Amino acid sequence: MSTRCFCRSLQKLFLRGPATRVARLCNSLVISDEKRQCTPVFLQSRNFTNESKGVNNFSQRSHSCGEFRPSHIGEEVKICGWVQYKRLMFLIVRDWSGTVQVLLPESMLGVLKDLPFESVVEITGIVHARKDGEINQEMETGEIEIQAKSIKVLNFCQEKLPINLNVNADETNEMQRMKYRYLDLRSEQLQFNLRLRSVMVMKMREFLHSYGFVDVDTPTLFRRTPGGAREFLVPSNYPGRFYSLPQSPQQFKQLLMVGGMDRYFQIAKCYRDEGSKPDRQPEFTQVDIELSFTTQEDVRNLIENMILQSWPSFKEQITLPFPSMTYHEAMVQYGCDKPDTRYNMKLHTVDDLMLDCGIQKIEDNMKRAGAHCVALVVPQGSMFSRKEIENLHIDQKFILVKIGKSGEFKANTNKFKSNTMQRLSSELKVQEGDLMIIVCGEGYVPYEVSGKIRTKAASLLEAKGVKFIPDNQFNFLWIVDFPLFLPAESGEGLESAHHPFTAPHPEDEKYLKTDPLEIRSQHYDLVLNGAEIGGGSIRIHDADTQRYVFENILQEDAGQLQHLIDALSYGCPPHGGIALGLERMLAVICGANSIRDVIAFPKTVEGRDSMSGAPTEISEDELAKYHIQVAPRKTTEE
Amino acid sequence: MSTRCFCRSLQKLFLRGPATRVARLCNSLVISDEKRQCTPVFLQSRNFTNESKGVNNFSQRSHSCGEFRPSHIGEEVKICGWVQYKRLMFLIVRDWSGTVQVLLPESMLGVLKDLPFESVVEITGIVHARKDGEINQEMETGEIEIQAKSIKVLNFCQEKLPINLNVNADETNEMQRMKYRYLDLRSEQLQFNLRLRSVMVMKMREFLHSYGFVDVDTPTLFRRTPGGAREFLVPSNYPGRFYSLPQSPQQFKQLLMVGGMDRYFQIAKCYRDEGSKPDRQPEFTQVDIELSFTTQEDVRNLIENMILQSWPSFKEQITLPFPSMTYHEAMVQYGCDKPDTRYNMKLHTVDDLMLDCGIQKIEDNMKRAGAHCVALVVPQGSMFSRKEIENLHIDQKFILVKIGKSGEFKANTNKFKSNTMQRLSSELKVQEGDLMIIVCGEGYVPYEVSGKIRTKAASLLEAKGVKFIPDNQFNFLWIVDFPLFLPAESGEGLESAHHPFTAPHPEDEKYLKTDPLEIRSQHYDLVLNGAEIGGGSIRIHDADTQRYVFENILQEDAGQLQHLIDALSYGCPPHGGIALGLERMLAVICGANSIRDVIAFPKTVEGRDSMSGAPTEISEDELAKYHIQVAPRKTTEE
Repeated sequence: MSTRCFCRSLQKLFLRGPATRVARLCNSLVISDEKRQCTPVFLQSRNFTNESKGVNNFSQRSHSCGEFRPSHIGEEVKICGWVQYKRLMFLIVRDWSGTVQVLLPESMLGVLKDLPFESVVEITGIVHARKDGEINQEMETGEIEIQAKSIKVLNFCQEKLPINLNVNADETNEMQRMKYRYLDLRSEQLQFNLRLRSVMVMKMREFLHSYGFVDVDTPTLFRRTPGGAREFLVPSNYPGRFYSLPQSPQQFKQLLMVGGMDRYFQIAKCYRDEGSKPDRQPEFTQVDIELSFTTQEDVRNLIENMILQSWPSFKEQITLPFPSMTYHEAMVQYGCDKPDTRYNMKLHTVDDLMLDCGIQKIEDNMKRAGAHCVALVVPQGSMFSRKEIENLHIDQKFILVKIGKSGEFKANTNKFKSNTMQRLSSELKVQEGDLMIIVCGEGYVPYEVSGKIRTKAASLLEAKGVKFIPDNQFNFLWIVDFPLFLPAESGEGLESAHHPFTAPHPEDEKYLKTDPLEIRSQHYDLVLNGAEIGGGSIRIHDADTQRYVFENILQEDAGQLQHLIDALSYGCPPHGGIALGLERMLAVICGANSIRDVIAFPKTVEGRDSMSGAPTEISEDELAKYHIQVAPRKTTEE
Repeated sequence: MSTRCFCRSLQKLFLRGPATRVARLCNSLVISDEKRQCTPVFLQSRNFTNESKGVNNFSQRSHSCGEFRPSHIGEEVKICGWVQYKRLMFLIVRDWSGTVQVLLPESMLGVLKDLPFESVVEITGIVHARKDGEINQEMETGEIEIQAKSIKVLNFCQEKLPINLNVNADETNEMQRMKYRYLDLRSEQLQFNLRLRSVMVMKMREFLHSYGFVDVDTPTLFRRTPGGAREFLVPSNYPGRFYSLPQSPQQFKQLLMVGGMDRYFQIAKCYRDEGSKPDRQPEFTQVDIELSFTTQEDVRNLIENMILQSWPSFKEQITLPFPSMTYHEAMVQYGCDKPDTRYNMKLHTVDDLMLDCGIQKIEDNMKRAGAHCVALVVPQGSMFSRKEIENLHIDQKFILVKIGKSGEFKANTNKFKSNTMQRLSSELKVQEGDLMIIVCGEGYVPYEVSGKIRTKAASLLEAKGVKFIPDNQFNFLWIVDFPLFLPAESGEGLESAHHPFTAPHPEDEKYLKTDPLEIRSQHYDLVLNGAEIGGGSIRIHDADTQRYVFENILQEDAGQLQHLIDALSYGCPPHGGIALGLERMLAVICGANSIRDVIAFPKTVEGRDSMSGAPTEISEDELAKYHIQVAPRKTTEE
C-alpha cells in the first residue's frame, strides 16, 4: 500500500482528531508571538540549543507534533506524544499541537506490533519531504514525515479508552464522558475551549492591567450574607460557628474602594448552592471589576473595550459601542430583559386594535388599567403541528391566526372580527405561512408570555431547518434603567431588584422616601445572544442612604452589614463595577451547549463529580472533629 | 505663613503618606508602559480628550494626584481624592498615586472649614508653577500646585479614622487594624504590597503564557483526600455527603496531563484547616504549575526564569541558576531543609575530634553507630547573657565554650580536654568573643538541634545590633534528593515524605521492593532566605508503580484514589511540576513580618475575620437545610 493510500484512508482521522483546529487556534491565539519566536535574552544566555523553541522549552522534545513544515526538512528532531494511529510501518503521533506521520525502519516494527493506541512515545528522527504523490493537503504537517531513528515507549495505554475522542461521537453518553473527563480532555473540542478560555482571560488581564487595575484576591471563607440562602456553609474550628462561601466578592470589592485601591479586578471563584439547574454549576467564575470615581457610561465603555481587546480573531468581529436598551423597551419589544437580538420577530403592542376585536373577554379586559394586548408574528409558523404549538406553551386563551395562501386567515376562534384581523395583518406586515399569536394580560405579563413563545419559536424554526438565527454572529446589548426595588416575592414589603448596594438613578433619588417603586436603578446588564453574561451598577457610597435602604425600605437587620455601613462613613469614594459570568460568555463564544463544556472538571447537573464521586460520605468520627453531625432525616409527618 | 513654611511643616507628612513609594512603584512596575503612554487605536477612534490618560480612563478625573510635573503647568485638570491635610487656604489631596497641593480661592474657603480629613473631594483647577522658594523637593509633585476653580465634596468622612494610616504607628494595635482593614488598605505599606503582588503575578502569567502554559481553573469542591485531616468540609445537598476544599489542585493537575493539556498553570486558591498557626492562613494562594515530558532540571530552570522575569526591578537583582543542595548536605551544613544562606555560620561535624574529648558520656556515645558531634561557632556569641543563651534552647547537656581574649577558653565543663579545644578552635577558626556550641546525638538529631540554635542566634545577633544578615539580599536555593519515604509518625510502617504521587529517583527505583527507606525522591524544594516558598516533583506516571506505592508501601486504601490510578493506565505522559506559596514568597520580597501583610483581607491567627465577625453562628433551622446539626460538646469524662 502506498503512503498516498494510507494518507487518504487516514484523512478522515486527521480531520477529526485534535489536530487542525487546535493547531490553528494556537497559531492565531498565542499571547505573545514575538516572545515565542525570539528567545528572551536570559534564555539565550543560557545556551539553549534551539533559540526559538518557546512551547518546547523546559521539556524533552525538540518540536511539537503539529509544527512541522517543509522548512524543517533535514532536521534531526525529537517528539513526544500519543499513538493516534498505526498501520504497517507508519505511526501517527499526536500532541496538543496536532499530528505528524512517522515512518519506522524495519528494525523497530517489533515495538509497534504490540503498542496500543493512546500509548505515549518518544521518537527521534529526521524530517523528510514526502514525495509529490504522497503529500496530504488535509493534514497541517502533510508535506513531511519523520523517519525514525529511535522509538521509546514512555507509557503503555493498558486498555481501550472507554470513550471515543471523536468530537461528534458519544454525544449521548454524557455520563461516561464526565466520569472519564481526564480522557475527554484529549478531545478537540475541550482542548479548544479550555485553551481559548485561558487566552481570552489573559487578554482581559492585560487590558485591565494596562489601565491600572489591581488584581486582588478576596477571601472565600466569609460570613453569611443576610438572606444568602444559597450559600455553602463551611464548619469552622469553633463549635457552632460557620464560614460561608460567598456568591460573589461584592462586599470586598466595595471595601477595596473604601481602601483607596482605586481600580480592582479579580477572576473570582464564586459559589452558589442551588441544587440542580441545567446551566448552573456550584462553583463558577466571575470577571469581577470595580473602580472609583466612575459613571455608568465609563463602566460600560471599559467593558466594551475589554471585550473587544480579548475577542478571538477568528470569530466574527464585534464593533463598539454596544447598543443599549432600557429595561422597559426590552420588555415591551422582546418580552424579557435579555433579548436575543440576532433575529427580529419583535413583539407588537396592539392595544388599540384589539379594543374592538369581537372577543368579549378581551374587550372587557382591555378596559382595565394596565391591560395590554401583545401580538407576535412567527414567520412560517403556520407549518407548526398541534404538538409543536403546545410545546411553545401557547395557552388556549391566546388567539392564534395562521396566514394562508393569498392572505387567508385561519384563527382558533371564529369570534375574531375579520376587519381587526385585516388591520392587524396589514400593520404587522404578515406574509403567507406566518403564524400570529395574540396574548392579553396585565402589565408586563402578556409581554413575558409572548417573549417566551418568541424564543421557543425561534429554536423550533431552527430545528426545522429554517435558517433564522445567523451563525457566528455576536449581539452584545446593554440593558439599563431597571427598577431599583420590586414588590417582595413573599408578598410583603419591597426587595432589591438586584442587590441592596445598587445606587438609585440620580433623577429618581427624590422618590426614595415617597415612592420607592418608581425609582430606576443605576444597574446595567450585559446580554450576549440572549444570554445574560454580566451585570453591575453604580453603588451607594453614602452611609446614610445605605442605612436607609437597609432599614427603612428593605427592613433588613442592618447589624449584619454594619461593617459595610461603617466603611461608607469613613470617606468612601463614588464607585461602580460589574461582574461578567466568564463561563456563560465563553459558552456563547464557543457555541457550547452548556457551561460544562468550558470548565475543565465540571460537576453534573446534580452537583456531583462523577470522576471522583464527590460529594462523599464522611464518618461520624470525622464529622465530630468539625463539631457537626448529620441531622436526622425528617419523616413526612413532621 | 508662607507656602514654603507650610510645605516644610508638611514635609514629614508627605514622606510618610502613601505618596512617594507607591508612586515610585507605579512608575517602575507598570505592566505595559507603552500601552499606558500611547492610547490604543480603538480608544483614539472614540475621541478621548486626553489620548494618554491610561489609568485615568473610564473615570471622572483627568489626572491622578501623584502624576503632576512642571510639564502640566497651564493645564486645566480635574482630580478626585481624599483630603489628607488642610490648613488655611491649602489642601493636600491624595489618591492611590500620591498627593498634590491645592490652593483654594477665598470664595471656597467655606467648604474647607467643616471638611474633615479623609473626606472625598473632586477639584477642578489650573496647574501653576510654585515660586522658587516654595518648591518642595521631598514631594513628587512639589514643583506645582493646583489653583482650584471648583471644589465638590463627594463624601464626608463622618468620624475620625479609628486607626492611624502612618506606616510606623499603631503597630501594637493589630486587632484594630484588622477590624478596620478597609481603612488600613489606604496605608502606604498595604497599597505597596498589594500592587506589587498584582504586578508580580501578572508577570508570572505573561511568562507562563509565552511558553505555552494554559491557565486552567480546577474545582475547589472536591472529594476528601485519604488522610486529608486538614481539609475543610462543605455540606452538600445530599444528606450525609460532603465536599472537601482541597489543600492543592494536585490530583487535577496530574489529570490535566493525562488529558493532554501539556502545560498547565493556575494561581490557585488552596485551603487548610489547621487552627492557629502564626504564619498560616485558612486560605492561601499557590502558583501551581505542571508540564508533560519534563525533568527535574527542566522544572527548576522554568521556575528560575519565571522568577527572574517577574522580579521587581527596584529590588536587589537575582542571578541564575539558583544554587542547589541535597537534603543531606542541607541537614549536615545547616541542620534544616530550608537553610538561610544569607549568612554563613555553618555546622561542623567534629566526630573524630570528639572521640577523645575527656567527657565520658560523649566518648561513649560516639562509639554508637550513627552518632555525631556537631559544632557551631556563633561569632561574638560570648556576649550573650545567661538568659539569652537559655532562649536559644541550649540544653545543659551541650558543651558551650566562650572564646576569650587571646584565645582563652571558658567551657561549661572542666572535663573538656584542653588539647581537644585547641584542635577544635584551630580547625573551626574561632575568634575572640565567639561562642562555640557542641551537640552530640544520633543521626540528624544533633544537626537539627544545632540548626535551630543557628537560626535563633542569628536573629539574636541582629536584634543586638550586630549587622549579620545583609539587607535586600535574596538567596534562592534548591533542595533536592529528599528521601521518598519516612518511618510513619504513628510508629508503624512508612509514609510519604511529601506526597504519594512523587516519583522515585531513577537510580533508586531498584529499592522499591526491597528497601524503600533508601530511595531518594524526585522532589525539590525552593527556599528563599530560609523560608520554604515552594516544592514540587516529577510524578509517578505508571499505574502499576502508583498502585504498588499506595497498596504495598503506604498501605492505603487505593480505592479512594482509583480514578487517579485508572487515569495513569490510559496513556499518561511523564510529567512533573511545582507549587509556589505566593504569599510566603511575597512576604519575603516585601520584607513583611507575616503573610497577612500581603493579603487584602486576611484572617487573624485564630482564623477569624475581625471585620465581619466570620465565622458566625447559624441557627438550627438554617443548618437543617444543609442536613447537619451542631454536635453536642463532649464532656471531659467522655
